[in-house]
Amino acid sequence: MQRLGQYLPILDWAQSYGRATLTNDMVAAVIVTIMLIPQSLAYAMIAGLPPEVGLYASILPLVAYAIFGTSRTLAVGPVAVVSLMTATAVGNIAAEGSADYLAAAMLLAFLSGAMLLAMGFMRLGFIANFLSHPVISGFITASGLLIAASQLKHVLGVDADGHTLPEILSDIAENIGQTNMPTLIIGVAVVAFLYFTRLRLKSLLLGLGLSSRPADIITKAGPVLAIAATILATEIFKLGEAGVKLVGDIPAGLPVPALPSFDIELVMQLAGPAFLISIIGFVESVSVAQTLASRRRQRIDPDQELIGLGASNIASSLSSGYPVTGGFARSVVNFDAGAETPAAGAYTAIGIALATMFLTPLLAALPRATLAATIIVAVLSLVDLGAVMRVWRYSKADFIAMAATILGTLFLGVEIGIMLGVGLSILLHLYRTSKPHMAVVGQVPGTEHFRNVERHDVRIFPHILSLRVDESLYFANSRYLEDRVAALVAEKPALKHVILQCSAVNEIDASALESLEEINHRLSDAGICLHLSEVKGPVMDRLKRSSLLEDLTGEVFLSQHEAEQNIADRLALKETFTAAK
Amino acid sequence: MQRLGQYLPILDWAQSYGRATLTNDMVAAVIVTIMLIPQSLAYAMIAGLPPEVGLYASILPLVAYAIFGTSRTLAVGPVAVVSLMTATAVGNIAAEGSADYLAAAMLLAFLSGAMLLAMGFMRLGFIANFLSHPVISGFITASGLLIAASQLKHVLGVDADGHTLPEILSDIAENIGQTNMPTLIIGVAVVAFLYFTRLRLKSLLLGLGLSSRPADIITKAGPVLAIAATILATEIFKLGEAGVKLVGDIPAGLPVPALPSFDIELVMQLAGPAFLISIIGFVESVSVAQTLASRRRQRIDPDQELIGLGASNIASSLSSGYPVTGGFARSVVNFDAGAETPAAGAYTAIGIALATMFLTPLLAALPRATLAATIIVAVLSLVDLGAVMRVWRYSKADFIAMAATILGTLFLGVEIGIMLGVGLSILLHLYRTSKPHMAVVGQVPGTEHFRNVERHDVRIFPHILSLRVDESLYFANSRYLEDRVAALVAEKPALKHVILQCSAVNEIDASALESLEEINHRLSDAGICLHLSEVKGPVMDRLKRSSLLEDLTGEVFLSQHEAEQNIADRLALKETFTAAK
Repeated sequence: MQRLGQYLPILDWAQSYGRATLTNDMVAAVIVTIMLIPQSLAYAMIAGLPPEVGLYASILPLVAYAIFGTSRTLAVGPVAVVSLMTATAVGNIAAEGSADYLAAAMLLAFLSGAMLLAMGFMRLGFIANFLSHPVISGFITASGLLIAASQLKHVLGVDADGHTLPEILSDIAENIGQTNMPTLIIGVAVVAFLYFTRLRLKSLLLGLGLSSRPADIITKAGPVLAIAATILATEIFKLGEAGVKLVGDIPAGLPVPALPSFDIELVMQLAGPAFLISIIGFVESVSVAQTLASRRRQRIDPDQELIGLGASNIASSLSSGYPVTGGFARSVVNFDAGAETPAAGAYTAIGIALATMFLTPLLAALPRATLAATIIVAVLSLVDLGAVMRVWRYSKADFIAMAATILGTLFLGVEIGIMLGVGLSILLHLYRTSKPHMAVVGQVPGTEHFRNVERHDVRIFPHILSLRVDESLYFANSRYLEDRVAALVAEKPALKHVILQCSAVNEIDASALESLEEINHRLSDAGICLHLSEVKGPVMDRLKRSSLLEDLTGEVFLSQHEAEQNIADRLALKETFTAAK
Repeated sequence: MQRLGQYLPILDWAQSYGRATLTNDMVAAVIVTIMLIPQSLAYAMIAGLPPEVGLYASILPLVAYAIFGTSRTLAVGPVAVVSLMTATAVGNIAAEGSADYLAAAMLLAFLSGAMLLAMGFMRLGFIANFLSHPVISGFITASGLLIAASQLKHVLGVDADGHTLPEILSDIAENIGQTNMPTLIIGVAVVAFLYFTRLRLKSLLLGLGLSSRPADIITKAGPVLAIAATILATEIFKLGEAGVKLVGDIPAGLPVPALPSFDIELVMQLAGPAFLISIIGFVESVSVAQTLASRRRQRIDPDQELIGLGASNIASSLSSGYPVTGGFARSVVNFDAGAETPAAGAYTAIGIALATMFLTPLLAALPRATLAATIIVAVLSLVDLGAVMRVWRYSKADFIAMAATILGTLFLGVEIGIMLGVGLSILLHLYRTSKPHMAVVGQVPGTEHFRNVERHDVRIFPHILSLRVDESLYFANSRYLEDRVAALVAEKPALKHVILQCSAVNEIDASALESLEEINHRLSDAGICLHLSEVKGPVMDRLKRSSLLEDLTGEVFLSQHEAEQNIADRLALKETFTAAK
């Protein structure tokens, strides 16, 4: 039962579900539903899919997450970045608008769901840690720019294609002569209106005496107002006949549940992109969920989140949808509107299902330019150039990984961009640790503390070299340690004892063990004893399973202070002895 | 001039070249030449190339290394592992024995040389550090087994193909019925003879009153004796007519210098294997060179070694050769025979050139089984199962990488094997550091030293949590730190101060900085101050470029002792104050 509860968080909160919670969840669901309808249509457009697919992907996945997810307030569904990645992955395989394109998108969702589930059961949530913060931040910024560029064509009413910035822009430049004026006017007007609602409307409404929460909700409803207004304008001015591209007839009714077709070749082609989508979607979703959970002192379980998102994607795939994940904007709206349990998500699903059945005829006259304008405004808020500057100031290595991610994503595509960033951040990390900081240390007078001789006034002995290694010792830096010790020893002919202070050594792997044995052996040839100090418990436990401690010419001391004291005493004793002889 | 000297180590030693050195180098050269002739023929056979190509690859490369290399005693030429990798790389592209096969091998040497040179000029020698010791050791063991298996066919006189253990063994099993008896007798006899010379001959000779050095040299000449004997046997018993496969006519004379043909598609196909060959060859060569240099207290420069080996491979390519590197056995022989400068290598080159011109007719009657037997005995000594056991005992993670390398190499091929090992060792390293060891610490009574509360009897304060993080903080573990601090704080309701002891933190990257800011923020919400202690110089310098130090609710202390002392004093003061009120 406890084990079942681990995989079914719904058992946790459903027992104590009361009337007050029901009301709060219902209110939140209504607000999120209103927000989700235009968003779902728009994101389907980013993915190159028919608009109804966006709605389908906002029904069953929410129910699945309500059952398996651990966040109380996360709202799952299509999101911008994953939609872009879907367009890239599927666009390489089938022509936009074809049945194959949709089938590939469904298969992609299924694969992604299956991978997330597998990672969840194997508790592999830590894989997400390999995406460094600058890489994620850079990837989201670049994706925002790329999506905005890809939507420009809808605002201009021209044809354009391609999955990288140069491709998109050159296509648009080629066709700019065919710009449709009414379309452009709608697009620009909606962008202007949305920026107005975002930046000014709330303070205006507050000035008119409205209280904060309704003002907030009206502000968030900006896209819905824009949609209603442009549908009206289209009907009144017959804009469809003026060349304005419309959403057109959307099949009313719910999707028929069906398995995607498993073509083995297609599975092989989509496996890589599905993996990237899983990881990116997971990271995005978990960081949203963690942020919201910490505000109410709740916790989420990243490994169970993998299962929740996996179930959501499988559900999406089975209902003609495409890859989904937890979205930032809608989750914040859900949270702010007072949602208390995942049941709010299930109610939202009912709302979207009703809309899919009954509201779609109204949307036929919606100009695509309106949707494109809402997308552009939404995704440009993802672009965070301030973060780029902060990373530049703090760490050049992180900046390189971030810049590679951004440029790679914009110019080579989303998949290459993210892989470039991850690969580079791992290589740079290895490179940085391959030449670790090492400090010759001495005693701070009057204390038992040892610090770098170059930064502090410390006491040192001529016959003793104390070297603090500021890094775990492992394959990437073990040869460097050999070189460094050899060089330091060569500088000091009077040397009799070398003490390696291991306070910063958290691991000694098999390669480093070989190197230490080599160093011990070489120092011994030169008549120098090698000692270790402040070796950590776990490191010491492991060294006991090797022959280093037996072969060591010196000793292992609990503290650096004890080591120097002991050896200094012994040297003094020896000198006395020599003098007496 | 100094800059020129950096790239031309020959300028270093050529000035002081005297008669005694000349004699020593000449003697060593004669011995190495005798050893190299059969070895070169044999290694060419591993690579699937005509025997003379092995000789060609042992002439100009030695001259190039003598000019550009930094090791005084390294002997460059064809080696077993690189020959195997060549066979795999080229075998995927052309049929063995075809002109395309040879052309591809020459191009491979050129590409490998160009890559080594480029890495040398960019001083990228550290790339070799990414090969952990267990991965290299596992790779060499597996290559030894694979080469031995691939030579079985020559000992049996059957046809067999394939680049993985199952392929080779199933081919041999299929054709075992065609075994040629005279061939098998030669093969087994030579293997037995070589093991006898290796294990018994030296002590026998010493027993007969011979001194150590000539005994050693006679022992090392075992393969030459075996070759002479089997050539004689072939001539006497007309073994060629009995179905024993012979080396056959070798074109006498030196190779005509020529550029390899640069087909762009071929270059693309060979670039990956060339890179792997470069790195493996470099690592093998540098470790041999370093071992020998340290015996005579000399030093080698790994970055210049890249240039030396790069020049050697280009030279090999231009003279109809294939990829070369510094070999262990021949370098040791060169060293033991008394070589003092790289000139010995140049003299060896002259020796091989003379042999190529005048001795090759004698080799036509050499049975291939003899060469195969010498290879089998040589490569089986590379198999080091003891190392596998030692790594198993010391570190399971290293063992996993090692086992993956061995199994991957044997069953999937050399290229996949080595990449699997490197990839896995990097991932396992990241995984190990992603959940770093953290210890709650307290003061060892009577000292200023702080140790793990679970391992030592230490003094702790109820209002203060001192946490030592035993790892650099970076993207792979920054989220784990957030989780861990949150969990520890939740356990202790009385807590007012958290001190992060950073003595083991050698780096805080941009991701970890975000996490620290988040931790500081969350603790502040809970009324807890965050302090740092023992922050290292370089880490502190970087933190000053961020806003963390301004936002920090607590202070940064020089030592953990100072931090606890200070905070404990302050808490006492506060209590007095509260009491007085």
